[in-house]
Amino acid sequence: MFFSRRSAYVLLAVCGLLAASFPGKADNLIEALRSGKHKVVDLSYALSDKLPAWPGDQRTFEAQVNARADQAGYFSRSFWMLEHYGTHLDAPIHFPPGSMAVDEIPPQRLIGPAVVLDVRQAVVANPDYRVTPRDVLAWEERHGRIPPGAIVLARTGWAERWPSEESYRNMDDQGAMRFPGFSVEAVRVLIERGVSGLGIDTLSVDYGRSKEFEVHRLSHGAGLYHLENLADLSSLPESGALLIVAPIKLEGGSGGPVRVFAVLP
Amino acid sequence: MFFSRRSAYVLLAVCGLLAASFPGKADNLIEALRSGKHKVVDLSYALSDKLPAWPGDQRTFEAQVNARADQAGYFSRSFWMLEHYGTHLDAPIHFPPGSMAVDEIPPQRLIGPAVVLDVRQAVVANPDYRVTPRDVLAWEERHGRIPPGAIVLARTGWAERWPSEESYRNMDDQGAMRFPGFSVEAVRVLIERGVSGLGIDTLSVDYGRSKEFEVHRLSHGAGLYHLENLADLSSLPESGALLIVAPIKLEGGSGGPVRVFAVLP
Repeated sequence: MFFSRRSAYVLLAVCGLLAASFPGKADNLIEALRSGKHKVVDLSYALSDKLPAWPGDQRTFEAQVNARADQAGYFSRSFWMLEHYGTHLDAPIHFPPGSMAVDEIPPQRLIGPAVVLDVRQAVVANPDYRVTPRDVLAWEERHGRIPPGAIVLARTGWAERWPSEESYRNMDDQGAMRFPGFSVEAVRVLIERGVSGLGIDTLSVDYGRSKEFEVHRLSHGAGLYHLENLADLSSLPESGALLIVAPIKLEGGSGGPVRVFAVLP
Repeated sequence: MFFSRRSAYVLLAVCGLLAASFPGKADNLIEALRSGKHKVVDLSYALSDKLPAWPGDQRTFEAQVNARADQAGYFSRSFWMLEHYGTHLDAPIHFPPGSMAVDEIPPQRLIGPAVVLDVRQAVVANPDYRVTPRDVLAWEERHGRIPPGAIVLARTGWAERWPSEESYRNMDDQGAMRFPGFSVEAVRVLIERGVSGLGIDTLSVDYGRSKEFEVHRLSHGAGLYHLENLADLSSLPESGALLIVAPIKLEGGSGGPVRVFAVLP
């Protein structure tokens, strides 16, 4: 049996179209972003003195106008803030035995696939919920093994409480905060996978009741960074988004405000 | 004449390989970055109190340790700085008639193709050099029309003088700074192209001798932002890199420290 010349030409044309549609990965990368086909989601809150903060500090953020456009012809300010306020990054040096400062994190570790662990249902029933190894394995059953360099985000639904400090801290009668976080056991699995960082839409990757900051010590010790107070994660797919993590480059800093963009497929 | 079945199968196999290599733009985008095939270049300087600054301010940057790891069990700081210090972004509101604050710039405008205008030769001969319309048109002759959403970087070679404040400011006997910038005429062409922003490896997009900040007023008025004190641009191609611009998200800010990444093809 033989194929006709016409059939072969059709095959050739299909090949040609395929090749033309995908001129190369580099071009695709830039072309796709340039064309606006990828939606970019901003996961950082705007910084002001009105954001829910970790308890204990009298001052968190202050901005001062140094030059006004109607007087000086231009507008300019200065600002003061805690390194761990608003949407921020914890560098490994934040908790021993971690040692890497925020400016020392290699840029390659700041761009990676976003793994979204959705635990909203569990959190509705239990505000003390901590992401479990089972949550991680269930994600892998659906989407495959978590790749090295991934940035793993816990989607707890807590962002709905922002910007109410009372509701976001959710302090009980004993003065303990009650919000969800990661468990040490889940983080052990994620470290094994070689992920670059953890992120969460609450005040801390350790759950609110934690006193020893076990997750901080474990993951910073393994060289991971943390993203805390991430904005609403509800538009992200569980798998398939690209995360861009851009912390302020403070020399020797323990962390700092971070701009986080998710590029959706 | 007929093609043999075998020839047809070979064609089919080639098609299959092509299709498998390019499973889709979204996957390519993430896969390419994940695989590390794209080099990421960090174009931001680390922030400390030792950086060349715009003349006139007594204080530019101060960091304070609030908790030491050997005493408190964790390390944490606060910091104070000018919005326009180090590698920073000028939001359009910095100079009237611009009106957009740094937190209001749409994320889509912060990611785009990098257009690198190399004027190093001209600057060696003349430190007062300003990028001309001819420089823009010469780039377009080599690489095609500058696309909307591009971020246009002047590569002047000035980063070689960093971090010497004296050499970077390059002040003359009359107290005027002598470093290169953009010309108003070139910026008019770039505004016509619909670019998102301008960037430069000097203290200002206006050249050092400018007193009226003509480029600031013109481009901010057209909604463009500026990147100033960009780090060494020498590893960037004239065309083909993707720029990620991630300013601190200060509510109502005139600008602020910015993390800039170039993703090389």
